[in-house]
Amino acid sequence: MAEKPKKPQKLKARLPRGLEDRDPSAIRATREMVEKIRAVYELYGFEPVETPAMEYTDALGKFLPDQDRPNEGVFSFQDDDEQWISLRYDLTAPLARYVGERYGTDGLVLPYRSYRVGYVFRNEKPGPGRFRQFMQFDADTVGSATPAADAEMCMMAADTMEALGVPRGSYVVKINSRKIFDGVLESIGLGGEENAVRRLTVLRTIDKLDKFSTDDIRKLLGPGRWDGGEEGKGDFTKGAGLTPDQMEIVFRVAGGHNESWVRVDSDNQPYEDDWCLSPAQFKQHLSDNQAWAADDGAPGYFFSNDTLLTNWRPLLNSPTGLQGLEELEQICSILTSAGYGSQRIRIASEVVRGLEYYTGSVLEVELLLETKDEKGRPVRFGSVGGGGRYDGLVSRFRGEPVPATGFSIGVSRLQAALTLLGKLDTRPEFGPVVVTVFDRDRVADYQKMVASLRAAGIRAELYLGNPKNMGNQLKYADRRNSPCVIIQGSDEKARGELQIKDLIEGAKAAAAIASNQEWRESRPAQFSCSEADLVAKVREVLGRHDVKWG
Amino acid sequence: MAEKPKKPQKLKARLPRGLEDRDPSAIRATREMVEKIRAVYELYGFEPVETPAMEYTDALGKFLPDQDRPNEGVFSFQDDDEQWISLRYDLTAPLARYVGERYGTDGLVLPYRSYRVGYVFRNEKPGPGRFRQFMQFDADTVGSATPAADAEMCMMAADTMEALGVPRGSYVVKINSRKIFDGVLESIGLGGEENAVRRLTVLRTIDKLDKFSTDDIRKLLGPGRWDGGEEGKGDFTKGAGLTPDQMEIVFRVAGGHNESWVRVDSDNQPYEDDWCLSPAQFKQHLSDNQAWAADDGAPGYFFSNDTLLTNWRPLLNSPTGLQGLEELEQICSILTSAGYGSQRIRIASEVVRGLEYYTGSVLEVELLLETKDEKGRPVRFGSVGGGGRYDGLVSRFRGEPVPATGFSIGVSRLQAALTLLGKLDTRPEFGPVVVTVFDRDRVADYQKMVASLRAAGIRAELYLGNPKNMGNQLKYADRRNSPCVIIQGSDEKARGELQIKDLIEGAKAAAAIASNQEWRESRPAQFSCSEADLVAKVREVLGRHDVKWG
Repeated sequence: MAEKPKKPQKLKARLPRGLEDRDPSAIRATREMVEKIRAVYELYGFEPVETPAMEYTDALGKFLPDQDRPNEGVFSFQDDDEQWISLRYDLTAPLARYVGERYGTDGLVLPYRSYRVGYVFRNEKPGPGRFRQFMQFDADTVGSATPAADAEMCMMAADTMEALGVPRGSYVVKINSRKIFDGVLESIGLGGEENAVRRLTVLRTIDKLDKFSTDDIRKLLGPGRWDGGEEGKGDFTKGAGLTPDQMEIVFRVAGGHNESWVRVDSDNQPYEDDWCLSPAQFKQHLSDNQAWAADDGAPGYFFSNDTLLTNWRPLLNSPTGLQGLEELEQICSILTSAGYGSQRIRIASEVVRGLEYYTGSVLEVELLLETKDEKGRPVRFGSVGGGGRYDGLVSRFRGEPVPATGFSIGVSRLQAALTLLGKLDTRPEFGPVVVTVFDRDRVADYQKMVASLRAAGIRAELYLGNPKNMGNQLKYADRRNSPCVIIQGSDEKARGELQIKDLIEGAKAAAAIASNQEWRESRPAQFSCSEADLVAKVREVLGRHDVKWG
Repeated sequence: MAEKPKKPQKLKARLPRGLEDRDPSAIRATREMVEKIRAVYELYGFEPVETPAMEYTDALGKFLPDQDRPNEGVFSFQDDDEQWISLRYDLTAPLARYVGERYGTDGLVLPYRSYRVGYVFRNEKPGPGRFRQFMQFDADTVGSATPAADAEMCMMAADTMEALGVPRGSYVVKINSRKIFDGVLESIGLGGEENAVRRLTVLRTIDKLDKFSTDDIRKLLGPGRWDGGEEGKGDFTKGAGLTPDQMEIVFRVAGGHNESWVRVDSDNQPYEDDWCLSPAQFKQHLSDNQAWAADDGAPGYFFSNDTLLTNWRPLLNSPTGLQGLEELEQICSILTSAGYGSQRIRIASEVVRGLEYYTGSVLEVELLLETKDEKGRPVRFGSVGGGGRYDGLVSRFRGEPVPATGFSIGVSRLQAALTLLGKLDTRPEFGPVVVTVFDRDRVADYQKMVASLRAAGIRAELYLGNPKNMGNQLKYADRRNSPCVIIQGSDEKARGELQIKDLIEGAKAAAAIASNQEWRESRPAQFSCSEADLVAKVREVLGRHDVKWG
C-alpha cells in the first residue's frame, strides 16, 4: 500500500477533576456500610426502590443551594427530541417524580416508606473531600403528614449511626423546624416578600453561630460588621438591621440551646439548681465523657429538649411558629416514649439545611468525633446526613398537596470520616493462592491444580505473567497478599509431588531474629506434599493463618 | 401584597424513554445475582475496582458498533473547561483508562485481574428489553498475553452461569478468534485496505448463518441476493463476489461446527463411525437432552473442539490464521485439562462480536433455553455476555503494547431472561408488622410497641396514614403483605392487653370453605395477649408462617 499508516496520537489517561477511582478496600467498606444501613431501613419497614441516574431536567427541578448561574450544579444534555435530561443531583427529586407518576394508582401503597441507594452527580467546583460523583442512601415517607413520620426519621438516623459502629455520644441527630424561624421572623415583623433579603441575612448569620463571637453575631443581626474588627477596616458585611428588641428574640431562639442543659440525678430527674451550660462548658463536658450520661440513666448533665421548647414558646408569637413548636413537641413526645433521649436526638436551632425544598422539620446528623489531618490539626467531620419535610416537592406533579419527609446519608462522606476515625476495616484481604508456572509447557497441568483448589472453594489463580523468572512470580504473589504459592518443577512432577510455600509464615520467619533457628525449623515456611494432598494441605495453611475460604 | 402569586405550572411526572424504575423484587434479584457473580470472580482471584460513571470522551474512545452519526451511542456534555465528558458506554474502556494511568507504577500489580459492576449508558434507540441504562459485570486480565488468560475467562463464564442457577446444557460459552477469519480472508486474497468492504460483507453474512438458508448464504458470499428469491424481485443485496473456491473455504470454516459432532462411548472415546450432525439434528439432540451428555462421562453425541480445529487447519493458509488456530488449540488444551468439555465451552466460528476493539479471542455466552412471550411465541434469549482479547485498548495510552482480555455479563439482560425462565425468586417478601393507631392521642404508646419489636429484630412500623378508619389500616397492612397487625383500643389498654391479627392465617381462613367452623376455631386468626408478651407472641406468629426476621 502506498498510504502511510496514520500514527495514532497517544492519549493521556486521566479522570476529569472531582471524580475518583475506588480500590478494593474502599469498595468493601462501602458494601459493608450499605448492607448495615439497608438492614436498619428494612427493620423500619422501608422497601427498596431504584430510579435511573438521569431524569428530565424539569422533573428534577432546581433546588440546589448554589443557583448563581443557570444550569449550575447539574450535568445536563439534550435528548434527540430536544428535551433536556440531567443526571440526578440527589435521590429526593427522582423519588418525587416516581411518586408523582404513581400517586393515586394501585402501584403505590400510601403511606409509602421507601429507601434507595446510589450515586448522585453535582457539577460543582470540586475540592478536598468534595466530589462530583458521590453516594447517598435515602429513606422517605410519602403521604403522611404526622410528626410521627419525622420522629421515625430521627430514630432511624440514630439507629443507623450506631449500626455503623459510631458509639452513642459520638454522634448527634439534630432536629429543627423551618417553621420556627419563619415564625420568629414573622412575629418580629419580618414577614412578606419585601423582607426576603433581611430574612436571608438573619438565616445566614444563624448558620454562622458556631464560627463568630456573640459580639460579631449581634453586629451581623444589627447594623453590619467590618471584617477588620473596627469601622473602616476590611470589608463591610451589611447587617439585617434588627432593633435590639428584635435581635434579642432572634438571638434567644438561635442561642436557646445554651440554656437547655440540666443536671439530672440517677432517676433522670433534674436537680433543683438547674444548671445552664455555656458552649464552652458544653465542650468541656463532652470531652469529659459524662455530659451525655443521662440517656442511660446515670446522673450527669444533659440537654433537655423539653426545656428548650418551653423557653421558645413565649418567643414564638405567630401561627407558623407555634405550629412548628407543636410539631416539635409531638416529635419529642414520641422520641421520649420510644426511649430516644437528647444524647441521641436533640433540638438544635442552628439547623437550617441548604436545599430549598424543605417545608417543615429539618434534621442533620453530626459526627462529634474529631481526628487529626496529615499536619496534626484537629478535623471535625460535622454533618454526614440530613433531611426534612418537603411537602411541596411531589405536589409539583399533582393538583393536590402531598406530604413527605425524608432523610439522606452521605455514604461517601461518612465513609471518609469513618475511615479516618479507624471505624472501618481497611486491612487488605488475603489474595488468592498462586499456582506458579515452573515449566511453561505444563500450563495445562498447573491450571488443573488451580481448578481443583477452586472446586474446593479456595481462591486460587494461575500465574499469567511471563513465567521465565520464579523470583518475579513469588514477588507477584507477595504483592497480591497471597497466603501461599504452589510450585512444581520437573523433579517434583516425577515424584508426584509439589511444593507449598507459606508466605505468611515466611514473612514471620523473616521478621524473627535470624539466629532463632529452632523456631524456624519447627514452623517450616515451605514443604513438600503429594499431588493428591494439594487441597488438604492448602486448607491447613489457610486454617493456620485464619484465612477465610469457601 | 399587590403582586398576584404565580400559579406553578403542573409538571408531568415521566421518565425519558429507554429508562426504567425498579421495584423491590427486581432490586432483590439483581443483588442476589451480583453477589453470586462476585463470589465466582473472587474465587478466581479477581479483585474489585470501581471507576466513575463519566470519563473524558477521548479516553473512552469510540468503539460502539453503530457509528453512522458522530457522537452516536454516548451521552456527552462539555465541562467548564470545554473538554468533553461522556457517560461510560461499557466497563472496558474505563478500565483501559484506569490501567493506562497506573501502568508501570507500584499502584498496579501485573498481571492485573480485576472485576467491576455498574450501570452503563447508551444513547441509542430504545426498544423492548433494550434500555439506555443497564448493568454490566465485567472481569478483565491486563498484562497477560498467554491464551491461559483467555481460557480462564471461558471457565469463569461457565462457572458463573451455573452459579446463577442455569444448568449445564442450558447455556454454552462460545469461543472463537478474530484471527481465524482474518487469516482465512488473507489466505484467499482478501487482505489489505482495498478489500475492506468485501471483508465486511463476508463477516456480516457469516453473522447471519443462523437466519438464512445455505443457498442464500452462498448467494451473499457470491454474486448477491434478491430479497424476493429470484432476479428482479425485491431489494438486491450486493454480494462479496467470492469465487466458488474462495466461497468453499469461507463456508467450510464458518460452517465447520456442523462437522464436529462425534459420538462417544462411556469412556468419552469416539466411536469408529464418527457421526456428523447437521444443524437440524443438533437441535433435535438438544431437545432430547442427550446431545451434551459426554461432558459428564456418559455416552452420547458431543461437539469436538479438537475435531473442529483439525478440520480448520488445512483451510488456514496464512500466518494470522495459524496463530489464531494455535491460540485456540492452547485454550482447548487448558480447558480439557481443567475438566471443561465442549458442553460448556465450544469453539464457534459464527462468534464475531460487535465491539471494534477486539484483537484475538472473542467469546459469547448464550442461553440455550427457550421461553414463550405473552403471545405464546417461542423466545430464544441468545447472548447474555461476551468478551475477548483487546490488546490495543490500553496501548492507546502507552507507548508500548499492553495485552488484555476480558469478559462482560449483561446483568440486566440476563436478569430479564432468568426472570422469564422462572430461575429467579420473584415472590414478594413479607412486609413489616404494622402497629395500627386506634386512638390518635396515644401515638407515642404505639410507637413504643414498634420500637420494642424493632429492638427484637422484627421488621415493624407504625401506621402513618390518617388513623380515623381501622378498615383502611388493615387494608394498608394487607397491601404491604404484612404477616400480622397489632391493635390496641382503650378497652384493651385498660386491661393491659392488645390484639394480634394474623393476616396470613386470616387469608387462609378466608380461602377455606366458610362452613369449616372447626378448622377456623382451632387456628384463630386474631387473639389477645398481654402487653408484656407482644414480642414473644409476634415471634410465634412469624415462626408459624416461616417469616424471616432478625
